[in-house]
Amino acid sequence: MSKNLTKRAEDYSKWYNELVVKADLAENSAVRGCMVIKPYGFAIWEKMQAELDRMFKATGHQNAYFPLFVPKSLFEAEEKNAEGFAKECAVVTHYRLQNDPDRPGKLRVDPEAKLEEELVVRPTSEAIIWNTYKGWIQSYRDLPILINQWANVVRWEMRTRLFLRTAEFLWQEGHTAHATEAEAIAETEQMNDIYATFVQNFMAIPVIKGVKTESERFAGAVDTHCIEALMQDGKALQAGTSHFLGQNFAKAFDVKFASKEGTLDYVWATSWGVSTRLMGALIMTHSDDQGLVLPPNLAPIQVVIVPIYKTDEQRDAITAKVETLKAVLEAKGISVKYDNRDTYRPGAKFAQHELQGVPLRIAIGSRDLENGTVELARRDNLTKETVSFEGIEDHIEGLLKTIQEDLFNKALHFRDTHITEVDNFEDFKTILDTKTGFISAHWDGTPETETKIKELTKATIRCIPNDFEPEKGQCVYSGNPSKGRVLFAKAY
Amino acid sequence: MSKNLTKRAEDYSKWYNELVVKADLAENSAVRGCMVIKPYGFAIWEKMQAELDRMFKATGHQNAYFPLFVPKSLFEAEEKNAEGFAKECAVVTHYRLQNDPDRPGKLRVDPEAKLEEELVVRPTSEAIIWNTYKGWIQSYRDLPILINQWANVVRWEMRTRLFLRTAEFLWQEGHTAHATEAEAIAETEQMNDIYATFVQNFMAIPVIKGVKTESERFAGAVDTHCIEALMQDGKALQAGTSHFLGQNFAKAFDVKFASKEGTLDYVWATSWGVSTRLMGALIMTHSDDQGLVLPPNLAPIQVVIVPIYKTDEQRDAITAKVETLKAVLEAKGISVKYDNRDTYRPGAKFAQHELQGVPLRIAIGSRDLENGTVELARRDNLTKETVSFEGIEDHIEGLLKTIQEDLFNKALHFRDTHITEVDNFEDFKTILDTKTGFISAHWDGTPETETKIKELTKATIRCIPNDFEPEKGQCVYSGNPSKGRVLFAKAY
Repeated sequence: MSKNLTKRAEDYSKWYNELVVKADLAENSAVRGCMVIKPYGFAIWEKMQAELDRMFKATGHQNAYFPLFVPKSLFEAEEKNAEGFAKECAVVTHYRLQNDPDRPGKLRVDPEAKLEEELVVRPTSEAIIWNTYKGWIQSYRDLPILINQWANVVRWEMRTRLFLRTAEFLWQEGHTAHATEAEAIAETEQMNDIYATFVQNFMAIPVIKGVKTESERFAGAVDTHCIEALMQDGKALQAGTSHFLGQNFAKAFDVKFASKEGTLDYVWATSWGVSTRLMGALIMTHSDDQGLVLPPNLAPIQVVIVPIYKTDEQRDAITAKVETLKAVLEAKGISVKYDNRDTYRPGAKFAQHELQGVPLRIAIGSRDLENGTVELARRDNLTKETVSFEGIEDHIEGLLKTIQEDLFNKALHFRDTHITEVDNFEDFKTILDTKTGFISAHWDGTPETETKIKELTKATIRCIPNDFEPEKGQCVYSGNPSKGRVLFAKAY
Repeated sequence: MSKNLTKRAEDYSKWYNELVVKADLAENSAVRGCMVIKPYGFAIWEKMQAELDRMFKATGHQNAYFPLFVPKSLFEAEEKNAEGFAKECAVVTHYRLQNDPDRPGKLRVDPEAKLEEELVVRPTSEAIIWNTYKGWIQSYRDLPILINQWANVVRWEMRTRLFLRTAEFLWQEGHTAHATEAEAIAETEQMNDIYATFVQNFMAIPVIKGVKTESERFAGAVDTHCIEALMQDGKALQAGTSHFLGQNFAKAFDVKFASKEGTLDYVWATSWGVSTRLMGALIMTHSDDQGLVLPPNLAPIQVVIVPIYKTDEQRDAITAKVETLKAVLEAKGISVKYDNRDTYRPGAKFAQHELQGVPLRIAIGSRDLENGTVELARRDNLTKETVSFEGIEDHIEGLLKTIQEDLFNKALHFRDTHITEVDNFEDFKTILDTKTGFISAHWDGTPETETKIKELTKATIRCIPNDFEPEKGQCVYSGNPSKGRVLFAKAY
């Protein structure tokens, strides 16, 4: 496995693209914009899924599954949602292929198998789900409905990048129905909080919680809550969103419920999701010029053990010792791989595990056996130490926790030193061209100003932070009065 | 929740359709032939997934994810596979919707957003996966590849039924690549064995392992191994298949590898899958006129506890006792639900849990508290007993195992008393019209006879059983020489 990774400082974008492929995470497929998620990449995604699923269930949600297809007439029912996604919909028009009379051995669409109504491949499932909820909800007794779905969705993006923006991606989408506005808003906030907790504690990525402006809102939402992270190149990445949908979908699909008091009212809704895009955030936040760096809480392999030997006797003696070591580590719930392949030399194995971001590497040779020690190498800061066998399992357990914390703190320090308060538009542009990161600046609250700033700088308002503090000021662009600072950044 | 279930003896098919909906497992959607899997049904599927996934990983397989779409030119590369699935393919032809100028507020396909090449929504993934494997395999060092994918697939079936046959369904598909024919055949057999073990030990359904005849084989396979189960109406159901694909896909996609000896050869392949169809088998094997019966190993709720009280004081005393009980049961890994809803009466709760197949129900009232007992009801045989609190957790643990075994044995007895050896075609037809079940009969080995028998009786050859014993005889239809008995049945 050749490293030869482009350096981040040279070309961050190229570094990312190469790393995803070389670390065996994913690759492009024969289908435009669709990726293949390879086993190593998928193993990380599975760990994310498992933890998120646990958190959703702990808060009373259940999984279900709704159809891949949305009939066009349902898709267009909620007007803003339809308008938002119409431009990027894959559409099924036929249900059969037949032999092509003009090209022997080839197939063509059977013109007689045209669907009466076209089917949209779901870009998101509000429409099909709210059409279903209509049949499930009659009274307050049927509420709340707290459902999540793990699924694939398709948005026909013109410019795609592995994990960050793909035509098909994997995600979870929660869709809940409530009797009151307050309950729905609380749910929206709770799920954004769960995303923040997950991303911080498992992905070791600090996030800023906030609310989107109108122009960045989910199509069909009343409010979009989000968590925003900062990548090493100073660009922001929206890591998760949770939408308060008001009664928009209930009205579009005529979903009413009888209250305890006997009145009839539209149901209140939320939806919330994170996707395989999180893989991109994970990679870009921690990795370095040597390759992937994974936080221990999400690493498929936390510790890799590489034997170093010349003779078969040496190998067997090392292997016997390793099996004991592996057993005590696994008894602590640590995932260990013994890389005893005889088709690769130790140096090649070191390079591969470094490239693939295994948090801890143990090398063990004959002299180590004699001394009762091993060499322990940390992937995150590339330091090595010689450690005694005695009590090594506790040392490793502690070290994995330390690495997890160190990664978070390093990312937090980077993020916090890349938030700049700016009070005039010249500084605004200078920061974007040099230091990048988040810019905290006054905004006059109008979409016009937002659009103008985006046109001039490519920066968008990432969010109005939850810890927004009222502060009188003047809009950084228009000079008009502002009520407080919002966060701008260039973003993925 | 109203029961009023049609009786099996009256109309088995109607009973099934009603049960799936009334037990809250699944329902039809607004999309022709596509189902919504409801939370209770999905929880059962998740338990199946978890166990199968564990078994796949324990045998060295890893999960990955491949695109939903297959470009037409790849789809048609393996000719037999293409021919087999062309008739039921959903095809994406456009990637955008636009406002319909003739119908304000409505959308239509944008004629300018026609794809250069149509995309087939995967009916199965051999084509897209083998096109990918081509890039992954150069030498014997890259083999074997042992990958599984959990995914949705689409086959445009004209007659659909919830779980049993739906246009979209969920499944797992394993796709492996090997250096030798023997290794690929061993993998094919191993996976069929894993399916059999899972279906018997978890679903409590006895299966017959065997091989399909040429006409029942997977399109593109050299051999299809299968497990066949028998439903209560005497019809067979194919519960899983494992295909030895030979070098067919390697040839279609030009996937060669350099052997240790330096020769270049095509790679050997297998694929194997089970789907949400298993839910249909589970329902039809064990359930009765009162509703669903679930084997404890797959029941989302194994024990439900219903309090019976008149006053708030009684309720509180019962609840205190139940919390202790719940804790000791959960400590044993038993899933328990305390159904303390005050919006339903005990009788309604009993009916619901019976309909939904919860294996054990505990009813506890004030007198029980005094006596230190509870009433324990088994769903499978509808018996009740009064049980002392003392040691109840061990009793329940044992009972859940007993129920699991009893369900399997009951199904095994039914299956074994519904295999009939038949030696002439009159008896063959009579059995199909009366007792149904599997028919063990001689067959001359020709597809012509197989087709003729199917036309005349609707029975197909379910498999040539693995325990096939050479036995000279005459074909039950043609009278021509036969080498042994095969299994016929009408099938789902």
